Amino acid sequence: MTDTIPHWLSKQADLSPSHPAIELDDGTIVTFSELKESSQRFARKLTHLGVEKGSHVGILSTNQIPMLIAIHALSYLGAVGVLLNTRLTNEELNYQLKDANVSFLLTSVLLKEQASMLDVEITQSFFDIEALPEKETPLETEINLEAVFTIIYTSGTTGFPKGVVHTYGNHWWSAVGSALNLGLQKHDKWLIPLPIFHVSGLSTSIKSVIYGMPIYLLEKFDTKTVHNALMEKQITIVSVVTMMVQRLLDELSKASYPKELRCLLLGGGPAPKALLERAKEKNVPVFQSYGMTETASQIVTLSPMDALEKLGSAGKPLFPARLKIENQADAQVGEIFVKGPMVTTGYYNNKSANEKSIQEGWLATGDLGYLDEEGYLYVVDRRNDLIISGGENIYPSEIEGVLSGMKQIKEAGVTGRKDETWGQVPVAFIVKGMEVSMEEIKAYLQTRLAKYKQPKEFYFVKELPRNAANKLVRNRLIQELNK
Amino acid sequence: MTDTIPHWLSKQADLSPSHPAIELDDGTIVTFSELKESSQRFARKLTHLGVEKGSHVGILSTNQIPMLIAIHALSYLGAVGVLLNTRLTNEELNYQLKDANVSFLLTSVLLKEQASMLDVEITQSFFDIEALPEKETPLETEINLEAVFTIIYTSGTTGFPKGVVHTYGNHWWSAVGSALNLGLQKHDKWLIPLPIFHVSGLSTSIKSVIYGMPIYLLEKFDTKTVHNALMEKQITIVSVVTMMVQRLLDELSKASYPKELRCLLLGGGPAPKALLERAKEKNVPVFQSYGMTETASQIVTLSPMDALEKLGSAGKPLFPARLKIENQADAQVGEIFVKGPMVTTGYYNNKSANEKSIQEGWLATGDLGYLDEEGYLYVVDRRNDLIISGGENIYPSEIEGVLSGMKQIKEAGVTGRKDETWGQVPVAFIVKGMEVSMEEIKAYLQTRLAKYKQPKEFYFVKELPRNAANKLVRNRLIQELNK
Repeated sequence: MTDTIPHWLSKQADLSPSHPAIELDDGTIVTFSELKESSQRFARKLTHLGVEKGSHVGILSTNQIPMLIAIHALSYLGAVGVLLNTRLTNEELNYQLKDANVSFLLTSVLLKEQASMLDVEITQSFFDIEALPEKETPLETEINLEAVFTIIYTSGTTGFPKGVVHTYGNHWWSAVGSALNLGLQKHDKWLIPLPIFHVSGLSTSIKSVIYGMPIYLLEKFDTKTVHNALMEKQITIVSVVTMMVQRLLDELSKASYPKELRCLLLGGGPAPKALLERAKEKNVPVFQSYGMTETASQIVTLSPMDALEKLGSAGKPLFPARLKIENQADAQVGEIFVKGPMVTTGYYNNKSANEKSIQEGWLATGDLGYLDEEGYLYVVDRRNDLIISGGENIYPSEIEGVLSGMKQIKEAGVTGRKDETWGQVPVAFIVKGMEVSMEEIKAYLQTRLAKYKQPKEFYFVKELPRNAANKLVRNRLIQELNK
Repeated sequence: MTDTIPHWLSKQADLSPSHPAIELDDGTIVTFSELKESSQRFARKLTHLGVEKGSHVGILSTNQIPMLIAIHALSYLGAVGVLLNTRLTNEELNYQLKDANVSFLLTSVLLKEQASMLDVEITQSFFDIEALPEKETPLETEINLEAVFTIIYTSGTTGFPKGVVHTYGNHWWSAVGSALNLGLQKHDKWLIPLPIFHVSGLSTSIKSVIYGMPIYLLEKFDTKTVHNALMEKQITIVSVVTMMVQRLLDELSKASYPKELRCLLLGGGPAPKALLERAKEKNVPVFQSYGMTETASQIVTLSPMDALEKLGSAGKPLFPARLKIENQADAQVGEIFVKGPMVTTGYYNNKSANEKSIQEGWLATGDLGYLDEEGYLYVVDRRNDLIISGGENIYPSEIEGVLSGMKQIKEAGVTGRKDETWGQVPVAFIVKGMEVSMEEIKAYLQTRLAKYKQPKEFYFVKELPRNAANKLVRNRLIQELNK
């Protein structure tokens, strides 16, 4: 019954043809009608290249209009977009490209040179594609909600990045759940300062199409640019991470935002209570939320009505999502499980991860939390030692895996250290097998780990703290240091 | 994937326990938590009576809180509610009760006496049920979107009323489509002056639960009461039919509504252009819409952005509904077909009607209309001679069928005549077989047809206008009169 809907961009272009879909800082405006036309044209050019239904197409780009056009073009062809983090090293990218069976790579002009060194059959810039002739081809007029639309990689606890599969239905229900939670106003305009290759940016650009709402798209977060946009561009909602709220509050000084700004949707890890209180003092409407790539953006949000009373909570699960706490570590805290039509159907081509994490639709998040007596979620700890640095997720096990790959290193333990600017930064504890210098290690990591994942400090130790079962106890690493 | 959601009332009671769900004119407020508790209690009492999963339970009531509690109680038991029009005669009600296999009838205290004369095994008032003990029983915690929730009868073109089946999914998607169209604001409060036994009132009371939005429930439409509520009760949306807009505009005189009132959602047939212009002059935000029982409320709405430019149009199909015009009568006008997850899966136990009206999800509405060059729907004529009188649908063929059942009448033709107050009223053209007086006919109809369906005028004629195929041409009846 609910399997098929009209193609969402075509539908919105029909409902609101001349309404802005994308707005840039330089005043550029793309309407829904123009976005549809450009995406369909782009799709016909991609066909010329050989992209077809079911093709896996990598997208390596910072936020820009051609990137969005390329993503929508894929939906018109029934192709799957694999969204790649531009901050990764080529080695990391190659792993994802191979794992996701990517045979075409689309990239921005600026990244073309880097991209052409990757292991993909065909690499073209958006600009290259624009120059191709169009090939007459039947475009999708409907969307099957159960079909796969995008894949985004996340490292998880295993150390090996896993491709999170998003169906059209995941994105659709995420948009609906978010609207039922945050409301939907005629003049809504959502600012995206976060990368579209992450689920937060991607999901907002899809909400835009489903709601008929303009997004205000920035290439990256810059405090002054975002501040000015919030002040002058009638922004009503903005997606942020903790570090951004901090900087925006500093910038705000004694002024206050226009009343149109109704929501700073805060994702990417628990926020310090002091920050939330500072926002409250300044009447800045920060909404705490909880979500992950696997939930196609926020799945728990603190509703406007509760925002003041439940400071520090991530709120309640969106309609129609569910949440439970299981495998309790103590009387209260346990592992957070979520279920709902916005939750991924699984990791790409990864049976063991799927069996481990998803049962009867319930996703084991690996995160720890508890519910208070009124059912509000408090996230105590992100999944097993996850480090969140400026909104990027960093998995200690992934870095440890790379470090252990260096022959001079016997074993390594990585953990997060608090950092004023980034929230957390990774630091490494190393047990040498042979003599090795810090500089050699840094050089080794250079090509193997994205910059944001590279440990900011290295400590050489005799042994790593382990528990009775000989399992590394990461939260004791820092304590060891202070002994 | 999208088949099962948490029970919507339990979910909303969890999200917004102390938020008002229902508000009455006398100041009574029922919160979502109270509504859930009362409905669950009521469900356990119904169990005592023998109601169980799959039971068909008739509901015969004017708008009141116990009626809503009863409806939600059915959803906790997985029982099906058959909503009955209180204006029908016992004969008409018996037809529907039998056709829908109703074995339990719930009614208001005031209607109990009338109801107990109907052909149903068990008839109880809401009050009777309240007095029963609760029986421990497992209540539904989830809702299967494909399960049947309600049945509402509509006569259609055949003359025999047909039971329109609504799944939970029909109601869910209607609510979502409406929110994507009208938006969803924190302070929304929707006034219901239309009966809940019609789809318009019912769907709004379900939207209330899905949105977490209070409804302002009136037992019936009364101009002064509605006017005062719009003026003083922070209503943001109100469902209306043409006659109500007329009266409200008269009442409004030189004043204007508070700016909170953002939408008068106008259903029940095309509105006179003069009325829409008058509303526009007074800055009253009338939204034209198009829908029917089969579409679980409005499926086409003129969006706020287009309201002024496209006066007279019903707008565009809601996300994610579709619409097409087929079987064109001339170059432009044809039959309106609609498709989408809010469209009924079919008529209850009525294979021939289903085969005739629904193909591959497309519902043939029988209504005539056209799309302008920008895709806006203009409804030219409601389904084959449908008469809309004060928001109630009247099917000429049904009245003709009853009239023809009187042995003195050879044949009859019924059509609508314009009426200042009601929009239209039915008038009958009768060819006698034997001598019969107007009084005798009126007496005959008294017990067989609801008052609003009884023709307001009778004309005795020698023959009825028929076309070449000997089919009655109803739109020539009035012309015949003027000859």
